[in-house]
Amino acid sequence: MSDITIGEYNLVYNAFSFTIAMMGAATVFFFLGRSQVSRDYKTAVTITGLVTLIAGYHYFRIFGSWEAAYTVTGTEVKPAGGMAFNDAYRYVDWLLTVPLLMTELVLVMKLSSADTWKKGTRLAVLAAIMIILGYPGEIASSFGTRWIFWVLAMIPFLIIVGDLFFGLRESIAKQPDNVRGLVNAARWLTVLSWAFYPIVFIFPMIGFSGAGAETAVQIGYTVADIVSKVGLGMLVYVISVRKSEPELRDNVVGARTAAAE
Amino acid sequence: MSDITIGEYNLVYNAFSFTIAMMGAATVFFFLGRSQVSRDYKTAVTITGLVTLIAGYHYFRIFGSWEAAYTVTGTEVKPAGGMAFNDAYRYVDWLLTVPLLMTELVLVMKLSSADTWKKGTRLAVLAAIMIILGYPGEIASSFGTRWIFWVLAMIPFLIIVGDLFFGLRESIAKQPDNVRGLVNAARWLTVLSWAFYPIVFIFPMIGFSGAGAETAVQIGYTVADIVSKVGLGMLVYVISVRKSEPELRDNVVGARTAAAE
Repeated sequence: MSDITIGEYNLVYNAFSFTIAMMGAATVFFFLGRSQVSRDYKTAVTITGLVTLIAGYHYFRIFGSWEAAYTVTGTEVKPAGGMAFNDAYRYVDWLLTVPLLMTELVLVMKLSSADTWKKGTRLAVLAAIMIILGYPGEIASSFGTRWIFWVLAMIPFLIIVGDLFFGLRESIAKQPDNVRGLVNAARWLTVLSWAFYPIVFIFPMIGFSGAGAETAVQIGYTVADIVSKVGLGMLVYVISVRKSEPELRDNVVGARTAAAE
Repeated sequence: MSDITIGEYNLVYNAFSFTIAMMGAATVFFFLGRSQVSRDYKTAVTITGLVTLIAGYHYFRIFGSWEAAYTVTGTEVKPAGGMAFNDAYRYVDWLLTVPLLMTELVLVMKLSSADTWKKGTRLAVLAAIMIILGYPGEIASSFGTRWIFWVLAMIPFLIIVGDLFFGLRESIAKQPDNVRGLVNAARWLTVLSWAFYPIVFIFPMIGFSGAGAETAVQIGYTVADIVSKVGLGMLVYVISVRKSEPELRDNVVGARTAAAE
């Protein structure tokens, strides 16, 4: 990694800082937004904010780790010689946030209690297994081991995709008209942004190498984190607001009627 | 401890960071969740969040202490030579959180005022005595002293277990149908996760030694803290939400009926 240029170093550095700001702002937006949704959707919006809060914490650590891993002298960047950049923060983050992302997606659909529990647990457990299987590959030095764990992690990933497209088809058809398209978009956004990770993971195995590859991996994971966490969160929030409208309107109308009498 | 490998060092390091994120997210979840339970259960949920807040603070300190205790150069880990890793943070944490855990468990059962006070105080005091008796053993250099304080701390521990299983039996039988199983689970989760601590405590006395044992102790305590604090907290929260349902539903129905009349 000694050949990293000042341009590459700065690009990653600034992208990490951007992400801290983005995750922090999103967290505050979701937490304040809780007051604008009805009781049924508060937990979905809370979890949405927890995901960006946890990611914000990890990007703060990732930023610090990146800063500490290199010594910059003018325009020259050298490894600092101490602790190397800690890639594990990403996996620790995903281990917490990816099951929560599945949970917020299921909660905003408002299935029956039994179905919420069953589908939520199944998707959250599969998501955790996917992350746990990816990590040994990420830290492996041989491409063979990297491929093996990539394939293993792809199994729960494909089951999740199958669940989202076939297992939830009926539930999506039952969503109210004004949100059905958005719920469908949330499903697609999840699958497409998640597809980014296994692609970034194989960058080093398909010929990208050195500082350029490291930069591409860091920027790739960062963009995917923003889309899958803040992007999905915004969709979940808008769906929650729209689904809350009839209930909140009834309460206001009810209160006004009572007041007028 | 000079033989700690970079793998062991990183495992503990990442587990501590994971726990900071976990405790922080749990705290926010419980504090926001207060708005979703009725007045009777707000204190139980507040205390649940205080427990994870206090633990999050201590894991932040523990993380810093671990980082400062070693010098990492590439893949080599050496004691930094300054202040050693401060194990006392754990006991300070437990001294505050373990009596609070007893309190949240008693509060969520919603006994009579007199019983809440009597059983809550008794369990909280026993829990504090248990922690205070454990500490001299933890810092003792001789196994003899370690065993003596282990035995002494086990006395209040077994009285607490007895209280949870016999003293609260009647109160549990009186819980509403939709939460009786969960209250029972909370009692079992407390006993089983707490049983972890005296077992981890005796690791060094039963032949585990060196960096491997230190790693096992740190990971063991960390897992036990997550289960006993976040795990129990989630149960207390779900019990609170379920027990609040009749009351919150009546309020909404009441408001609508009033509005319609």
